[in-house]
Amino acid sequence: MATVRHAHTVWQGDLLKGSGVVTLDSSGLGSYDVSWPARTEEPNGRTSPEELIAAAHSSCFSMAFSNGLAKAGHAPERLETKADVTFQPGQGITGIHLTVVGQVLGLSEDEFQRLAADAKENCPVSQALTGTTITLDAKLA
Amino acid sequence: MATVRHAHTVWQGDLLKGSGVVTLDSSGLGSYDVSWPARTEEPNGRTSPEELIAAAHSSCFSMAFSNGLAKAGHAPERLETKADVTFQPGQGITGIHLTVVGQVLGLSEDEFQRLAADAKENCPVSQALTGTTITLDAKLA
Repeated sequence: MATVRHAHTVWQGDLLKGSGVVTLDSSGLGSYDVSWPARTEEPNGRTSPEELIAAAHSSCFSMAFSNGLAKAGHAPERLETKADVTFQPGQGITGIHLTVVGQVLGLSEDEFQRLAADAKENCPVSQALTGTTITLDAKLA
Repeated sequence: MATVRHAHTVWQGDLLKGSGVVTLDSSGLGSYDVSWPARTEEPNGRTSPEELIAAAHSSCFSMAFSNGLAKAGHAPERLETKADVTFQPGQGITGIHLTVVGQVLGLSEDEFQRLAADAKENCPVSQALTGTTITLDAKLA
């Protein structure tokens, strides 16, 4: 059955001097400041669309990879996936780089790499983010 | 100049019974639990890739729309943008619905609608999310 998840942003003013607050509504986890300078200069404690995309992608990839590994008989002890999202003003989100380090017992390096590449191609967030370039480094610890 | 934003997820176990923690690294705002049941059943206080995509999209759209409005001479008093992200297990992220209510002085309804549609098409997160269907309801308050 389909699920729907919600968030909302309140923004006041123009892009350069205005500011916003983004709220995670489905979880109720909280509200966070966003601004253009925090996005294009230094975060200074603020989140950004790119950091949130990085969080979405790293969690979705980790779930898909864990599932592929478990189906192959090797549920992971631990996966750590970092996502780096690059934003070029005027061009957009030009790339997402995933780096995963996996602790998985009894699995060959080849099979680990194959299943990592499959999760990168097919996890739901990757499948939605077809307008940018996704790259992956996978390491079996 | 390009900026890079980071987040990472630590996942332990298989998809159905395992769980993860996603951390917003660039902002340092915090770490949040994620799990498959929280994604496909009820959130129960946990975030999900879809909620994080909703947060990214609502904030990016709001920034782009504020910029379009300001360039037209009508910086908004207030924009409130909600994003609803639908996840269908087995199919993926099947749609994102944006709902924006704007308080903008001296702007016609037609111009408001035109600039809202432009932000929906061209904001960086929309441009990255070409693998899903994005819809918009815009209302000038």
